[in-house]
Amino acid sequence: MPTSEPLEIREERREQVVRAVESGDTSRVKQLINTLHPADIADLLESIPQDERVLVWQSANVNTLGEVLIEVSDGVRESLLEEMSHIRQVEAISHLDIDEIADLFPDLSDRVVAEVLLNLDKETRKGLDQVLAYPEDTAGGLMNIDTVIIREGVTLRVVRRYLRLRGELPEYTDKLFVVDSEYRLKGTLPLSSLVTHKGTTLVSDLMATEIVDFNAHLPDDEVAAAFERYNLISAPVTDNENHLIGRITIDDIVDVIREEGEQVIMAQAGIKEEEDLFAPIHRRAKNRALWLGVNMVMAIIAASVITRFEATIEQIVALAVLLPVIANMGGNTGMQTLAVIIRGLGNDTINPDNAFAVMRREFLVGSFNGIIFAVMTALITTFWYGDIALGMIVAMAMLITLSSAALFGAIIPVILERMEIDPAVASGIVMTTIVDIIGFFAILGLASLLLT
Amino acid sequence: MPTSEPLEIREERREQVVRAVESGDTSRVKQLINTLHPADIADLLESIPQDERVLVWQSANVNTLGEVLIEVSDGVRESLLEEMSHIRQVEAISHLDIDEIADLFPDLSDRVVAEVLLNLDKETRKGLDQVLAYPEDTAGGLMNIDTVIIREGVTLRVVRRYLRLRGELPEYTDKLFVVDSEYRLKGTLPLSSLVTHKGTTLVSDLMATEIVDFNAHLPDDEVAAAFERYNLISAPVTDNENHLIGRITIDDIVDVIREEGEQVIMAQAGIKEEEDLFAPIHRRAKNRALWLGVNMVMAIIAASVITRFEATIEQIVALAVLLPVIANMGGNTGMQTLAVIIRGLGNDTINPDNAFAVMRREFLVGSFNGIIFAVMTALITTFWYGDIALGMIVAMAMLITLSSAALFGAIIPVILERMEIDPAVASGIVMTTIVDIIGFFAILGLASLLLT
Repeated sequence: MPTSEPLEIREERREQVVRAVESGDTSRVKQLINTLHPADIADLLESIPQDERVLVWQSANVNTLGEVLIEVSDGVRESLLEEMSHIRQVEAISHLDIDEIADLFPDLSDRVVAEVLLNLDKETRKGLDQVLAYPEDTAGGLMNIDTVIIREGVTLRVVRRYLRLRGELPEYTDKLFVVDSEYRLKGTLPLSSLVTHKGTTLVSDLMATEIVDFNAHLPDDEVAAAFERYNLISAPVTDNENHLIGRITIDDIVDVIREEGEQVIMAQAGIKEEEDLFAPIHRRAKNRALWLGVNMVMAIIAASVITRFEATIEQIVALAVLLPVIANMGGNTGMQTLAVIIRGLGNDTINPDNAFAVMRREFLVGSFNGIIFAVMTALITTFWYGDIALGMIVAMAMLITLSSAALFGAIIPVILERMEIDPAVASGIVMTTIVDIIGFFAILGLASLLLT
Repeated sequence: MPTSEPLEIREERREQVVRAVESGDTSRVKQLINTLHPADIADLLESIPQDERVLVWQSANVNTLGEVLIEVSDGVRESLLEEMSHIRQVEAISHLDIDEIADLFPDLSDRVVAEVLLNLDKETRKGLDQVLAYPEDTAGGLMNIDTVIIREGVTLRVVRRYLRLRGELPEYTDKLFVVDSEYRLKGTLPLSSLVTHKGTTLVSDLMATEIVDFNAHLPDDEVAAAFERYNLISAPVTDNENHLIGRITIDDIVDVIREEGEQVIMAQAGIKEEEDLFAPIHRRAKNRALWLGVNMVMAIIAASVITRFEATIEQIVALAVLLPVIANMGGNTGMQTLAVIIRGLGNDTINPDNAFAVMRREFLVGSFNGIIFAVMTALITTFWYGDIALGMIVAMAMLITLSSAALFGAIIPVILERMEIDPAVASGIVMTTIVDIIGFFAILGLASLLLT
């Protein structure tokens, strides 16, 4: 009988642990915590304060600590490592796959790194060196070295016997890699054809030779796109001479895709790195302060436009009421355009061939809404202040602001991407400042020209 | 020899097609377009204007049109369907898997749906009915019916012979499903153990009985979380009586995860549905106008606070300069908190157990930065206007605004989630309005009390 509803059981176990942790019942925590999946332990640690975290962390089995360290966010990882002795760190990390060890290295002290390396056998250390040779966000950085390789000259029966002797296959093994005597990739053999074909068939007759392999230097987002496009579960990684050096599996790709989405959201809000909810207040405040500082400088630059028109505002105080409305509408229009453009740049549907046409159309969309909201604000302002001239000026300012918001919302991310600056991080702040300046100039300039 | 660098070849082919399309060379487009992967055709269609789209669409092989319709965004799909006759729609759709047909049904006319149903054999129609019985965003809506089932009483040799007779396995088949005579799920048999064990072994001796299966009503984000947690490639879907009714595969999960990320970004900007870059201007403007309208109402509500203090502003015009700075800083602080909280709610690290503690800490983070920026603005304002009293008032207003921005940034998404409103959509606008009102009241109220 299959365990019915494992998801519900998981939730139940989680709650038992939470209750044990809250009541500080150390022996019960020790007894329960190791029934949880490492990913569940990671989620639990993220959601509890520092003192409870220590209790959970010291109760968990050292075999699972490494997996948990991989799963938690950067901030929490830091706090957990601080609670571990050097020896415990080394022991926890020794249980991990090579690509995972490589991911953790930047967070470890030199002493721990040295001891981990000493504990590895020669071949594993060689594999680790190879993974570490590539940046984290490339195919080489993503790969593991758990490839199952075969030769093309043998029959399926021989392959099956080899696999039986070898025992369990690495996770996500949907295909075996066929290499020549110099480890050059010749093809791949799907596990399913091993099952669906006769034992006398030769590997060379059955192997796929039109395969998707990744050069170790390929950026991880391109690897992810290819996994999606070609429905891959695993794929070989090769060096510049087509030698097989590793394997990328779909679980790492899922992580890349999830992180891409989260990074855009965090980047837009100007949060430097993943935050630990229970990190010391000053550390989290610091993580956000730089962004707020930049914003303040930009806001002051935009506001300095207003100071030039203080005399006008003194005469027509209504302008002070309308300024934030103009800024709000401009900012929102620009953010809509940014969302569309950044998505298009991300999936390559916006490219040098069509960038100009796309910008032109964004400008028209902004102008279309600009006209609609210009009419609305004209009516509201005229009604509110009983001043048709003021209504007309606000309408003109609204149209100018909304159409330039859409235009700059389209231009800025394209330019930033060409300058190799992440458009998700910087576009919002640059766009908002420019649009504020234009909006303030438009309404105050028109008012001072026409009304005073 | 493996095709070296298929990714580069793909890029080259794409450019050839683009050039052929741009030069209007119909016969060359026809010749080249069918060498592209459906996902590549979809990307190409997204990135070109309507008239070029028609050319590409009419040149593509009808076998691939269905796949392309699945890959494109909602807006583009609409424009492509408009270009197809009923017969061509029916033919294109008939080539798809059942879960894909089900996904397209909402976009098709009743006549096309009826004809597609007529073309299906009885069993497939029954399967389709089953998929359509569940909402798109549940396990049932995600599933396909291409399960490979076996009985527990047979040997591996029998299973292998069955698979050989059956021929090619469905994509992403990493395990076979073991059911009893009434189709109730008993366990799963990994393909790899079929390969690594002797032919005389019984399925019942080898099958996994602790399996992760999904009730058809489970929401898709929980399915996705379980796929990540338990490293799944495929998983069975069952009804309430534990009958096997379908199978979910990792490719659909990757789509769910990617869409989750994109939806948050679009939702935050108030874009109702995925936009076609080349849709008619008025249609795209309409897609964004509702959000801008809501924003304008909220901005006017916030601005109406300012009208109560027009007399104060007339006396101290500097306040008109400072209002947008306060609003900007409050909005940004709140957005930072929102990003952290919405992420935490999404991955369940923020839950009823710790929500209060999290809010308290957010408030403290906001207040910490509030103090820092209060001091800075006090210095800047005093220096700028030579008015210490004004500087002190701006500082107080800044502190009040930033701490309440962080507090409301934490409270609002938690409340919205409890009201079952998507926090990504509504949190930003509600938070900004509240924070603007508080900020405007703080600076203008303090100024009118203390300075006039």
